[in-house]
Amino acid sequence: MQRLKCELAYDGSAFSGYQIQPNKRTVQGELEQALLKLHKGQVVKVYASGRTDAGVHARGQVIHFDTPLQIPGERWSVALQTLLPDDISILAVTKVAPTFHARFDVTAKEYRYLVYREQAHDPFRRNFAYHYPYSIDIAAIKAASRHLLGVHDFSSFCSAKTEVEDKVREMYEIEVMEDGGFLVFRFVGNGFLYNMVRILVGTLLQVGAEKIAVADIPAILAKKNRIYAGKTAPPQGLYLWKVFYESCITTCPGVK
Amino acid sequence: MQRLKCELAYDGSAFSGYQIQPNKRTVQGELEQALLKLHKGQVVKVYASGRTDAGVHARGQVIHFDTPLQIPGERWSVALQTLLPDDISILAVTKVAPTFHARFDVTAKEYRYLVYREQAHDPFRRNFAYHYPYSIDIAAIKAASRHLLGVHDFSSFCSAKTEVEDKVREMYEIEVMEDGGFLVFRFVGNGFLYNMVRILVGTLLQVGAEKIAVADIPAILAKKNRIYAGKTAPPQGLYLWKVFYESCITTCPGVK
Repeated sequence: MQRLKCELAYDGSAFSGYQIQPNKRTVQGELEQALLKLHKGQVVKVYASGRTDAGVHARGQVIHFDTPLQIPGERWSVALQTLLPDDISILAVTKVAPTFHARFDVTAKEYRYLVYREQAHDPFRRNFAYHYPYSIDIAAIKAASRHLLGVHDFSSFCSAKTEVEDKVREMYEIEVMEDGGFLVFRFVGNGFLYNMVRILVGTLLQVGAEKIAVADIPAILAKKNRIYAGKTAPPQGLYLWKVFYESCITTCPGVK
Repeated sequence: MQRLKCELAYDGSAFSGYQIQPNKRTVQGELEQALLKLHKGQVVKVYASGRTDAGVHARGQVIHFDTPLQIPGERWSVALQTLLPDDISILAVTKVAPTFHARFDVTAKEYRYLVYREQAHDPFRRNFAYHYPYSIDIAAIKAASRHLLGVHDFSSFCSAKTEVEDKVREMYEIEVMEDGGFLVFRFVGNGFLYNMVRILVGTLLQVGAEKIAVADIPAILAKKNRIYAGKTAPPQGLYLWKVFYESCITTCPGVK
């Protein structure tokens, strides 16, 4: 038996999210189906760094699973890709220690959220970014972001449905940049709560629209109540970009 | 009654092509359905610059139709967009002379074909470009392209199913460039036959793979028979980019 770590990308448009559900098309469901075939009917359970919601994409999701199969490392990607639908792509498969855990060993995650601002609706970006054709005060968004850096209780910025008790997380970096025709929000932190990035982006866009003041952000955090933050931005702009397992301070590119 | 010219973009992924067909989802079908609603049940036929096949995209398709409705010009885009699915986008609607015809008045068309060459399959580009992760001799492709410029009988470069008699067309420009992570083939000509761009790209890629010699292109043209050209590249890389109605020599950007 060996443990494999697998990095994958997926277009979330046609999935009911990452997590397996009966009678729904899910990323986990497709992965376990492919592994079932590869293992001739033997069930192989996969463990991910975390879930993603319906319509949310991944550029660097990470899973692990245990297998008795002796397939050379470089052949694993091809073997899995062959059995998977083409909206999932296997980026790398590597052998890891039997103690490695895709979820529990996460040291940081990077999410990105893409917005396009042109007036006209773009059929080629409709599933891959949020169409927000309104004026935005980028400087205000950046100023508001600074209040969100560091260690905070992010209760105001997660869905009321969140089940975890401890809502304290550390935000290492928030970057707001123009890239390839998109306004990109980049978040790196040690952990993210349910809907947290989408609520952060929704709130920051309202700051950019001068509907929430920059100076209100600390007060919103202090309330520890979802109703005080802004809207939840839609899922199609969100990407789980990268999952880090190393000591983040020294090895994550771009983390200040 | 007035005649309107309408420019539109569409993601061809979920359409059985442009042209209306019974029990299929088509771009023309969606447009005529939207116009039927807008005209309270009165049938309005649309005329396009030409068809596009299933899976083929448009950045600048042009249609015309006649309407008795008195809607101010700038409101037309919104009125139509509201009634259309989000994989079609209305870019502009303008009043034209009653003699204008979206198909018969075309003076030139520009098509682009996008290829991505990274080793790994990309789930975000699978419907929007052709995955060709092999080595390519770009200089050979450019040299071969030069043989295709000018006036030729393109019988070898169109589907055997092509119904038109006269297969002589003039190719004004072929450009092969790297742009935004894609290898882009750009074709501007006075007219294109059925599957012509896809066969041109398939053949040029085989030239790039050294399976067809640059010097063979004139001979392939001279044969006037589809079986001598290369493969038909798949539909998802193809975009009807722009349709020209002016005297092309003086007004088309990029035409040499």
